[in-house]
Amino acid sequence: MAEKYFYLELGKEPKDSDFVALFKIEPVEGKSVEEAANSVAAESSIGTWTEVATMSESFRETFKARVTRIEGNYVEIAYPSILFEKGNMSQIYSSVAGNIFGMKDVKNLRLESLKTPKDFVESFDGPKYGIDGIREKLKIKKRPIVGTIVKPKIGLDPESQSQVMYEAMVGGVDVVKDDENLTSQEFCPFEERLKKCLEKRKKAEDETGEGKGYIPNITAPLDIMLKRAELVEKMGGIFAMVDIITVGWSALQSLRKESFNLVLHGHRAMHGAFTRNKLHGISMEVIARSARLVGIDQLHIGTAVGKMEGKRDEVEKCADALRLKEEGEGRLRQNWFSVKRAMPIASGGLHPGHIPALYEIFGDDCIFQFGGGIHGHPEGTKSGAKAVRDSLNASLRHISLSSAAEDSRELKMALEKWGSV
Amino acid sequence: MAEKYFYLELGKEPKDSDFVALFKIEPVEGKSVEEAANSVAAESSIGTWTEVATMSESFRETFKARVTRIEGNYVEIAYPSILFEKGNMSQIYSSVAGNIFGMKDVKNLRLESLKTPKDFVESFDGPKYGIDGIREKLKIKKRPIVGTIVKPKIGLDPESQSQVMYEAMVGGVDVVKDDENLTSQEFCPFEERLKKCLEKRKKAEDETGEGKGYIPNITAPLDIMLKRAELVEKMGGIFAMVDIITVGWSALQSLRKESFNLVLHGHRAMHGAFTRNKLHGISMEVIARSARLVGIDQLHIGTAVGKMEGKRDEVEKCADALRLKEEGEGRLRQNWFSVKRAMPIASGGLHPGHIPALYEIFGDDCIFQFGGGIHGHPEGTKSGAKAVRDSLNASLRHISLSSAAEDSRELKMALEKWGSV
Repeated sequence: MAEKYFYLELGKEPKDSDFVALFKIEPVEGKSVEEAANSVAAESSIGTWTEVATMSESFRETFKARVTRIEGNYVEIAYPSILFEKGNMSQIYSSVAGNIFGMKDVKNLRLESLKTPKDFVESFDGPKYGIDGIREKLKIKKRPIVGTIVKPKIGLDPESQSQVMYEAMVGGVDVVKDDENLTSQEFCPFEERLKKCLEKRKKAEDETGEGKGYIPNITAPLDIMLKRAELVEKMGGIFAMVDIITVGWSALQSLRKESFNLVLHGHRAMHGAFTRNKLHGISMEVIARSARLVGIDQLHIGTAVGKMEGKRDEVEKCADALRLKEEGEGRLRQNWFSVKRAMPIASGGLHPGHIPALYEIFGDDCIFQFGGGIHGHPEGTKSGAKAVRDSLNASLRHISLSSAAEDSRELKMALEKWGSV
Repeated sequence: MAEKYFYLELGKEPKDSDFVALFKIEPVEGKSVEEAANSVAAESSIGTWTEVATMSESFRETFKARVTRIEGNYVEIAYPSILFEKGNMSQIYSSVAGNIFGMKDVKNLRLESLKTPKDFVESFDGPKYGIDGIREKLKIKKRPIVGTIVKPKIGLDPESQSQVMYEAMVGGVDVVKDDENLTSQEFCPFEERLKKCLEKRKKAEDETGEGKGYIPNITAPLDIMLKRAELVEKMGGIFAMVDIITVGWSALQSLRKESFNLVLHGHRAMHGAFTRNKLHGISMEVIARSARLVGIDQLHIGTAVGKMEGKRDEVEKCADALRLKEEGEGRLRQNWFSVKRAMPIASGGLHPGHIPALYEIFGDDCIFQFGGGIHGHPEGTKSGAKAVRDSLNASLRHISLSSAAEDSRELKMALEKWGSV
C-alpha cells in the first residue's frame, strides 16, 4: 500500500479504548482529502515527512493513528490510547491539536470534537463541586443562577468595586465576578479587594436572606494563583475564577489537584483566537469537554441569543458537554462515567429582555450573566439587578415580560432601553 | 465626541510607559476600520456594549486604551500600563488578546505585534541562561548548534530511545530532544528514559570529546513538571523541554521561577491553531517575545527554507525577537534592557541540503534541528548525523556542499536522497 494512504483504514470501527477525533480538513490544492487525512493521522501519531530506518511495520501497526471515516471534508481519526499519558491534558493537546495545524498538506484544519476513552476520563480530577455542589453552596435549589460582572470592568478601587458588587447582590443577583482582565493591579490589589468584597457579600446575604457568591479572578502564575486561592478559602470565599485559556492546562490541573473548597469558575478569554474561524482551529466544544475533565465547575460558553446567527447549535453542544452524563453523536459520543456535571455560563451582551429565550434554551442548570445589561440600567446597578431578577421570576412563573413589567418599574425601564427578544 | 469614536486619538504618540499593540482589523460589513478599532480599544480596556452609570469621564481618560494610528487595516493601540499586572503574562493576554477575538464588530482580527514597556519587561524573569549560557553548558563557542528529534517520535522504549539518541550524538549532533508528544507514556516512562538517555549522553561525550545535551520533554501538570525538572537536574541533565502553548503561561512562569539549573527548551505545538491564518489570531512574533520574557532559553520558530513561501520575514522577526537587544520597527520597537538573548530553533522538514541556506539566514546563534532528515538517511541515524555535521562544516569553512560531499560518503548519500537548496 502506498505510503500516502498507509494510515487510512476506512470502514474500520474505532475501539472503545481509542481516542476518537473529528476533524474538518481542507487540503491544499492538488491534494485529496484522503491524502491530507493520511498526513494528519501520521503527524499526530508516529509519522515524519520521510521514511526512517528505525521504524518497523509491526511497530507502526501498534502505534499508528487510523483514519476510520471520511465524509466530505469531515475526517474521523482513531488514536490508540497507548499514544497518550493519563492525566496530562497538555500532552493530549500536543498530540491531537499540535503540529498538525502547521502542516503543508492542509490549507485549513479544525478539530471539531474529541472523545476520550474511559480510563483516561477517570485519570482526570473532574469538577470538585459541579452543578449540585454549586447549588448547595448558594442554597439555590432549582432555577437559573443570575450573575454579573462588575462594570466598568477595570479601574475601580476595592471600595468602589465592592460597593458595585453589593448593589448588584441586594438588587437580586446571586453571584458577582471580577472581569477577566482584573487580577491584582495597583489600583485594585487582590487581597484588599477580596477582603472588602467578602465583607459586603456577608452584608448582602444578611440583608436579603439569600446565598450570595463573590467570584474573585485569581489568574496569575500558578505559585501566585495558589496563594490567592488559599487566601480566598481562608477568608470564607466559595468561588475562584481562572482565565482558562491564557492560564493553560498545566497550571489548571495543578490548581484543581490542590482541592481547595472553592468552586472553579472558568473564563474563556482568548478562545476566539482559535475557535472563531469555522475552517481552522479548535471548536469550543473540545475546550468545554477538556475543561470539565480537568475540573472546572462552571464555564463561559456563549449565549445563543442576540445577533450572533447560527451559533445556537454550537452553544448547546457546549452546554451538553458540560452538564450531561452522556452527550455527543455517534462515535464521538462521550460517556462521562463518574465525572460530575459542570454548569454552563451564558455571558456576553445580555440584558433582562433576553431571559425568556435563555430560559427556553438552557433551562434551570445555567448561570445567566449580565454586565452592561445590569450596570447600564438608567437607574444604575441595583435597579438593573432587580430588573434581571424580576425578568427571571416571570419566566419561572410562566408569565410574559410585558405583564411582569407592569409590577416592576425596574424591568419596565430595562425593556424600554434594550427591548426584548 | 460620538461614543463610537471615543477611543480614537489618531496622531497622538504612545507614551514610553504604554503597552503598544499592532492589530490587523477586518471590520464586519457596514462598519469602518475606525469604528471596529474603537470597539477593540474599548473591549480590551474599560468599555462594555452599553453606557454604564458607574463610569465618569475623568475615569475613562485615565484608564482607556487609545487608537493612535490607522493605516489601511493596520491599527495601533496604546494601553496605559496601569491596566496591567506586573509579572502576570496570563493577565496581559486576557487583556490585549482576550474577548476581542469574539467581538461582533470585527470579522477578522490579528494581534501582529506587542511592545512591552520597561518596568513590565523587568517584571518578568527572562531566560536564565540564554545564548551565552547554552554555549557555555555545551562548550560550543561560535557556530550553529545541531540537534535532532528522536524518530519515530513516539513508541520507542527507553533502551531504543537512548540508543537512537546515542547514535545521533556520536554521528555529530550536539543536542537530542524528545518529541513534543512524548512525555511519560507506558511504553517509555519518563524516569527510565531519562536515566538511560543521560547515561548514553555521557558515553557519547566521552567518545567524541564534545559537549552533548539530552532534552527531555517534561510537559505535564505543573506539580508533575516540577518533579520531572528536579529529577533531570539531580541526574545531571542540563536541558528540559516544555510545550509552551499546550502548557500555558501560568505554569511556565512558575516553572521558571524555580530557577532550576536547566536550559528551558520551548516547543510551540498548537501555535498553528491561531498563528497560521494571516487574518485572524496572534502572530508568532508576539508569542516569541512573550516566551523570551517569561524565560524560555530556546524556542522553535520555523525554518524559513523549503517550500513555505513568504514566511522568511516572519521567521526572521521571531529570531530577532529572541536574540536581539533591541528589535522591531517604529513604535513597536522592543528594548530588552537586561533580558538575556534567547536562542532560535529552526525545525521542521529539514535535511543536510538546507544547511547553507539556514546558515545564511540565521548565522551562528541558532539551533538547526533535524528529524527525518537525520533518521531517514539511507544508512540510518549515525550516518544521517554525520551528513548534517559535514554539511555544517562545509558552511563554516565556506566550501560548497558538492565539494564537501566528495570527502563525505554520508553527505553525498543525503544529498542524493533529498537534494540541496
